[in-house]
Amino acid sequence: MERIEFTPERSQFVYTFGGAAPIMRVRPGTALALWSEDAYNHALRSVDDVASTKLDVRYLNPQTGPFYIVGAEPGDTLVVHIVSLTPARSWGASATIPFFGGMTSTDRTAMLQPALPEATWIYEVDSAAGTVGFQSRFGNFEVALPLAPMLGTVGVAPSGGEVRSSLVPERFGGNMDTPEMRAGTTAYLGVNVEGALLSIGDGHYRQGEGEACGTAVEGAMNSVIVVELIKGHGPLWPRLENDDYWMVVGSSRPMEDSWRIAQLEMIRWLSEMFELHEMDAYQLLSQVAEAPIANVVDPNYSVVVKVRKSFFTTGQAFDGMHRELRSRASAMG
Amino acid sequence: MERIEFTPERSQFVYTFGGAAPIMRVRPGTALALWSEDAYNHALRSVDDVASTKLDVRYLNPQTGPFYIVGAEPGDTLVVHIVSLTPARSWGASATIPFFGGMTSTDRTAMLQPALPEATWIYEVDSAAGTVGFQSRFGNFEVALPLAPMLGTVGVAPSGGEVRSSLVPERFGGNMDTPEMRAGTTAYLGVNVEGALLSIGDGHYRQGEGEACGTAVEGAMNSVIVVELIKGHGPLWPRLENDDYWMVVGSSRPMEDSWRIAQLEMIRWLSEMFELHEMDAYQLLSQVAEAPIANVVDPNYSVVVKVRKSFFTTGQAFDGMHRELRSRASAMG
Amino acid sequence: MERIEFTPERSQFVYTFGGAAPIMRVRPGTALALWSEDAYNHALRSVDDVASTKLDVRYLNPQTGPFYIVGAEPGDTLVVHIVSLTPARSWGASATIPFFGGMTSTDRTAMLQPALPEATWIYEVDSAAGTVGFQSRFGNFEVALPLAPMLGTVGVAPSGGEVRSSLVPERFGGNMDTPEMRAGTTAYLGVNVEGALLSIGDGHYRQGEGEACGTAVEGAMNSVIVVELIKGHGPLWPRLENDDYWMVVGSSRPMEDSWRIAQLEMIRWLSEMFELHEMDAYQLLSQVAEAPIANVVDPNYSVVVKVRKSFFTTGQAFDGMHRELRSRASAMG
Amino acid sequence: MERIEFTPERSQFVYTFGGAAPIMRVRPGTALALWSEDAYNHALRSVDDVASTKLDVRYLNPQTGPFYIVGAEPGDTLVVHIVSLTPARSWGASATIPFFGGMTSTDRTAMLQPALPEATWIYEVDSAAGTVGFQSRFGNFEVALPLAPMLGTVGVAPSGGEVRSSLVPERFGGNMDTPEMRAGTTAYLGVNVEGALLSIGDGHYRQGEGEACGTAVEGAMNSVIVVELIKGHGPLWPRLENDDYWMVVGSSRPMEDSWRIAQLEMIRWLSEMFELHEMDAYQLLSQVAEAPIANVVDPNYSVVVKVRKSFFTTGQAFDGMHRELRSRASAMG
Repeated sequence: MERIEFTPERSQFVYTFGGAAPIMRVRPGTALALWSEDAYNHALRSVDDVASTKLDVRYLNPQTGPFYIVGAEPGDTLVVHIVSLTPARSWGASATIPFFGGMTSTDRTAMLQPALPEATWIYEVDSAAGTVGFQSRFGNFEVALPLAPMLGTVGVAPSGGEVRSSLVPERFGGNMDTPEMRAGTTAYLGVNVEGALLSIGDGHYRQGEGEACGTAVEGAMNSVIVVELIKGHGPLWPRLENDDYWMVVGSSRPMEDSWRIAQLEMIRWLSEMFELHEMDAYQLLSQVAEAPIANVVDPNYSVVVKVRKSFFTTGQAFDGMHRELRSRASAMG
Repeated sequence: MERIEFTPERSQFVYTFGGAAPIMRVRPGTALALWSEDAYNHALRSVDDVASTKLDVRYLNPQTGPFYIVGAEPGDTLVVHIVSLTPARSWGASATIPFFGGMTSTDRTAMLQPALPEATWIYEVDSAAGTVGFQSRFGNFEVALPLAPMLGTVGVAPSGGEVRSSLVPERFGGNMDTPEMRAGTTAYLGVNVEGALLSIGDGHYRQGEGEACGTAVEGAMNSVIVVELIKGHGPLWPRLENDDYWMVVGSSRPMEDSWRIAQLEMIRWLSEMFELHEMDAYQLLSQVAEAPIANVVDPNYSVVVKVRKSFFTTGQAFDGMHRELRSRASAMG
Repeated sequence: MERIEFTPERSQFVYTFGGAAPIMRVRPGTALALWSEDAYNHALRSVDDVASTKLDVRYLNPQTGPFYIVGAEPGDTLVVHIVSLTPARSWGASATIPFFGGMTSTDRTAMLQPALPEATWIYEVDSAAGTVGFQSRFGNFEVALPLAPMLGTVGVAPSGGEVRSSLVPERFGGNMDTPEMRAGTTAYLGVNVEGALLSIGDGHYRQGEGEACGTAVEGAMNSVIVVELIKGHGPLWPRLENDDYWMVVGSSRPMEDSWRIAQLEMIRWLSEMFELHEMDAYQLLSQVAEAPIANVVDPNYSVVVKVRKSFFTTGQAFDGMHRELRSRASAMG
Repeated sequence: MERIEFTPERSQFVYTFGGAAPIMRVRPGTALALWSEDAYNHALRSVDDVASTKLDVRYLNPQTGPFYIVGAEPGDTLVVHIVSLTPARSWGASATIPFFGGMTSTDRTAMLQPALPEATWIYEVDSAAGTVGFQSRFGNFEVALPLAPMLGTVGVAPSGGEVRSSLVPERFGGNMDTPEMRAGTTAYLGVNVEGALLSIGDGHYRQGEGEACGTAVEGAMNSVIVVELIKGHGPLWPRLENDDYWMVVGSSRPMEDSWRIAQLEMIRWLSEMFELHEMDAYQLLSQVAEAPIANVVDPNYSVVVKVRKSFFTTGQAFDGMHRELRSRASAMG
């Protein structure tokens, strides 16, 4: 398998989906070993660094990419398999940012109350133990939490000539902020422009569902991914697959609409895989769905709808692409 | 332990939280073995029974109760531990009901489109295999799904003299429709009126998160529960606990508000258990929360926020009540 | 016309729709001259009275009623024509209440921010000038605003045996908080229980659309209303009519659903009045609707959808009931 | 006053805010006489043209522009005064489009129901009478409605390098679809990029508040506008002014957030104009606001919050810019 390693210069970071020239051309089947900066653009390095003085809002959530996937055309399916995610620093950071997050008023859910206190938490990575360490900032409490690396952001260029901030989750993927985007997961994204223009970033060493305060344990990340291309069959919304689940991520507001989007895409997926009438797929999904929230803090809220594969003895997505990529990834060993 | 068995007559079913006279007085510490009718009031018994001709909207979601808990006063905490849930029939039913459910317009999300097709699915229970059988209605597909009994509805009388339909989930519990309400779970509900007036019902042999079509695999249920009382400490919103998780259920609209409610209650709970500043609890929860959706179909949507207990070496809820009840339940053999 | 005057004793105030015994029986065609207390239950009388120390949450928004309307049965249309509204005190009060209102987090839109400052504003009524006087509390600014009396609350008992707080707007009317509920307006409410059980209250000397801070210029009110009954034809949601407009009030969350409810009810009303296909009524309404927000602060948000009658040369609602009542009201002189 | 006339070639139409090269440079103080195509790109010309066969989704809502305003820099205030709006055709069209509109499920409020019937309504303009004629499509009903021309879309390039579809209303203005955007109105927009990059389009011969079916009486428009520039003072959200009202347009989802945005911006505007504490401005606005809905169909919903100027004897926005522009417009004769 062809393998490309790429660590962007700071000047090469991109902050949008769409609107940026491709950094390189990549053939389907290539493995990419990529370094990505953290979502703060490395601006928060200690508990003394707070968002309002250190963050530059023009340079949030830097992406590594975009990669022009050779042969990708609108309507195709870009496949991104995550082989491994490894923290690229020995610490991650999380912070409360004024008027950003799920438990504060925001520029949208606009209110008159003052901002919550700003604070930054630094989590030390213990690679041997496989943990990140929480330390309270307003008291004296510590707890080691399992390291659980994931990518907040995987996306392609939007349709219709739009260019969107890397903070946005949408049909094109983007900042979905779901813990399901971890090693062993395959993402299927609909291609909107020639070359697809894939970017990734926003490494999280760990994140709770909802990403309540607005930021996970953010950290620079070393990602190994394999990129593939399926001609046609582009899904309307991002579909994910791992060894245990088929998944769809819906992103909109209010949150019930994110769920509805993911439900409808999953109903269609089940209908395809099992040749089910939509009403039967609706009924079946009503009894088997899992529905974890991904984020309630981004410009769109994201919800995952999941179906456990072990319920079924038949049914295969995208002609077995996930299994094939798992096999190739194992061979990379 | 005192044990009471009770199977209501049809004339004894209640359809509201609040507004009904207690069916009996129960002392804290009592085990109740209760039978409850299914949410359709037994009106759908075959695939030929459809909602619009068989359901009587005055008599939906019949509850077993209400039980007057001796000594319960406003501000107290009613504790309901679910010892076991056993299907009381050999089949359950699920149905699409005109303008009811998550993937159709409703009386609230009102639109001009015609109703979806009505259909009823009958799921045969295979107790030996521990499954319920899905059979497609518009095609030829079968799959056996794990039996996973739960109660859609556990609640007390509301505050402020309100009387609410048994279809409503709210602060008083009610129709939360979360799969977390299963055997082994302890529910903590704030008491609003003297005697608390506990009712249960809406047995589900299995339900997906979201309960998308509006109904689970609905079935009559034999429930064994133990009722306890904690003086004071009544939580604002329903708290749940099992061996693995602390949980809160928030119910409102839009769904982000259900999540916010559950987050805030959990932040407060964590703050109490670990003597954390709210900002530290907010930060910690941001990295550890799980947030499965419960229902997106009832008058309020319900979201669960969960925290895994094994992350922590200290911390105990309600003075160890759950562990105590598990122990008592084991002793019941 | 029969005329009844009624000023409730404090002990006669009711705080719910449904759940209270009728205070008296009233025959259709009767004029009622009613006194109602302000929504604070007279607890805020000066700028030094603030909500958290003076308000008793058990006794908010006291209603005058309920009146048992002789002959009213479920499915009927209760007609309430507002003849006149006259402030019963020389001052009204508005206040910010912790975690209540449109520009603060609430018990539903739950956040971690502290409450906004509490304050009470007293508005002096100048009956001669027809104004209420705003005086700033944190500075030195005055402005006289037109007196514009309205009733925040007009409602009947709910269906399904429910009892709802008088703070709730719903299908049964209730706390809709729309400035359209003023002298000259006729309200049509669907009857849910025998006798309808009409209550009114929550007098506002003036209110902006949205009632942003959560309270209007609240004041005790002398209301003269005429009550009528139409057998059958009960509308699903409250319909209003004045000399210039047909109107519907929808109440739910999120606010787009309030609007959808009011739109659908108006589409059906236009379809009936002009024998239009629903798609034609939808199209026509798309070009003629006015859609002022009523409240964004109550347990449900309310939106009004209005159609100007002068666009049409034909079309009459409820057989000309509004014109008839206007005529009777004039005769009362 | 310098005056420029411009009618774009079809190849010059733009479909985004941001992302297009300026069509020309315009000095502040210039009058622009502009022609704009209708939102369907002239694809619906008779009742036999329906959306699914005639509309090209790549070419919806064509804009005239963008105009590079000389001297405009980020943080400045672009002022657009609408002198006159004149229908450029003798007919307008409105249509139902599958899964688009307020009373149908959509790609966001995703459901399983089939699409509503497609239909196109043609409204003949009677310039002498000042009316557009509604004719039912599914029956036999006609009514002449007042001609009330407005622009659905007035906007500048977004911030952060984003490029947004011309169907989107946002901070940058865009597709707000409010009837307030009519002759005599002055719009104040925050400038995000050098030259501001102003575009206009989406002429409506008339529109109801909410734009329920998704389209107004759409028509090509001749617009005369005057463009001015205020250094600095760029508002966060679009502010409007006419002879009678100060107004703000908020756009987001759910609709209560659109309202909150507009409320907060108006509270700040009132605070500036009258030197009020925010709590006083909040209180005052609570009693004087009007809050008509603009649209409930676009990617963001828009709500207007308005304050009647005649309530106040002092207070002036942007140093009297609106009055000045009205005066200049009169002089244009």
